[in-house]
Amino acid sequence: MALPKGTAMHFTSEHLLDDGVLERAFTLGGIPGILWTPVPASAPAPLILLGPPPLGLRTAYPRLAARARRSAADGFATATLELPGSGDRPRLPSAEQAVADLRRAMRAGEPVGDEIIDALVLPLVDRSVPEWQTALDALLALPGIGGPVGYSGGVISIGVRLAVVEPRVSAAVLFAGSFVPRVMFEEARQVTIPLHVLLQWDDEGNDRQAALDLFDAFGSEEKTLHANMGGHTGVPQHAGDAAARFFTRHLK
Amino acid sequence: MALPKGTAMHFTSEHLLDDGVLERAFTLGGIPGILWTPVPASAPAPLILLGPPPLGLRTAYPRLAARARRSAADGFATATLELPGSGDRPRLPSAEQAVADLRRAMRAGEPVGDEIIDALVLPLVDRSVPEWQTALDALLALPGIGGPVGYSGGVISIGVRLAVVEPRVSAAVLFAGSFVPRVMFEEARQVTIPLHVLLQWDDEGNDRQAALDLFDAFGSEEKTLHANMGGHTGVPQHAGDAAARFFTRHLK
Repeated sequence: MALPKGTAMHFTSEHLLDDGVLERAFTLGGIPGILWTPVPASAPAPLILLGPPPLGLRTAYPRLAARARRSAADGFATATLELPGSGDRPRLPSAEQAVADLRRAMRAGEPVGDEIIDALVLPLVDRSVPEWQTALDALLALPGIGGPVGYSGGVISIGVRLAVVEPRVSAAVLFAGSFVPRVMFEEARQVTIPLHVLLQWDDEGNDRQAALDLFDAFGSEEKTLHANMGGHTGVPQHAGDAAARFFTRHLK
Repeated sequence: MALPKGTAMHFTSEHLLDDGVLERAFTLGGIPGILWTPVPASAPAPLILLGPPPLGLRTAYPRLAARARRSAADGFATATLELPGSGDRPRLPSAEQAVADLRRAMRAGEPVGDEIIDALVLPLVDRSVPEWQTALDALLALPGIGGPVGYSGGVISIGVRLAVVEPRVSAAVLFAGSFVPRVMFEEARQVTIPLHVLLQWDDEGNDRQAALDLFDAFGSEEKTLHANMGGHTGVPQHAGDAAARFFTRHLK
């Protein structure tokens, strides 16, 4: 059920936000997405792919739109895509079971086993990364959008895989806030693009040591870890600002 | 041999750097120091104490002056003070022995024992912190210099102790790049001011896990860890910029 290469992007709505950012909803082979572009665009804007959390775009919209508007102010276009199994997209049966197993393990205070993490994350990575690549083909063909391309946030393993397999992605902000399958540590060693990694030190649903180990594993010569206090959704304003400056340094 | 409270500061030289920063050498009860102030100062400039590395001010001057000029551009006065046992100041016999023991342990590839680290660092902390406090009395009495006060860099244990005992220090940039005695982890829990901690991930002479444990121990509600690639002296430009922004957020 992979998207055929060359799948066309159809815009389904557009409106101009009050700060002059053009927000366009689109579908790509039936997958919903949103594109934000700064207006007026003089030169083609570099593009940042905004990895959504696996909550559905509707739920995640306020946080995504805030990041998009901030990025537009810095001169970036941004785009996001509904994850497989999220929003109105068909569930991924393996992931549904894994979520149930995960909740049970966490309620029981048991360690979350590798097989749960693999079942939760790997199908999502395997399915979504080719979708992002097809979206990238369509996005980069639009007038007003140019390279280089960054990837920001969302499910960290998707960012890792994209950084390895997609040469058009030339810098990434990764959020160490989700479970990471063992196999991704191997992939991390193959990453060579500049990385800016955010870690919420007291993130309830995150394994801090695994996040530090993953940071250590990345093969990139330039990688920075920014750890801040607070839980999963408590990333302070200044940390968002620092991530924005990272993209300005590397994509402009 | 502590400095008497109220020890006067004597300026021994002054010159105007090409970017309009006034650099003044001083002595405080025989201890050499340097004060940099932005010119022209409109309102009293907030002060950042630049903790030097234990190399002597003469050796450390280029890096200290670069940080001072950067800080002056942001509107800060900065001051530094020769550490006990550094430069032309009398050696600390216990520290001399500890340095020899440290070198021997490192050459032999042995772990550096707690008693070596204690002997190396604790006398330095015990002697220098009251000196910084006396310097602070003198500096804050000068026209053109006001609070609030920040502490930046140098020997991290000195910054920790100052943050605990000196209420005029209201924010600190700490460089996790030197050995930390066990007892300082207890003191770290008492620190409550905003902290910005720099860690060079591959610092040869530093214990990364100890640095992470120390960051975890700090009692501050706002603390940020910025880890970057490279060795002890390889702090990237953007990390210096981020530290400067931290002070602008907290001291202005």
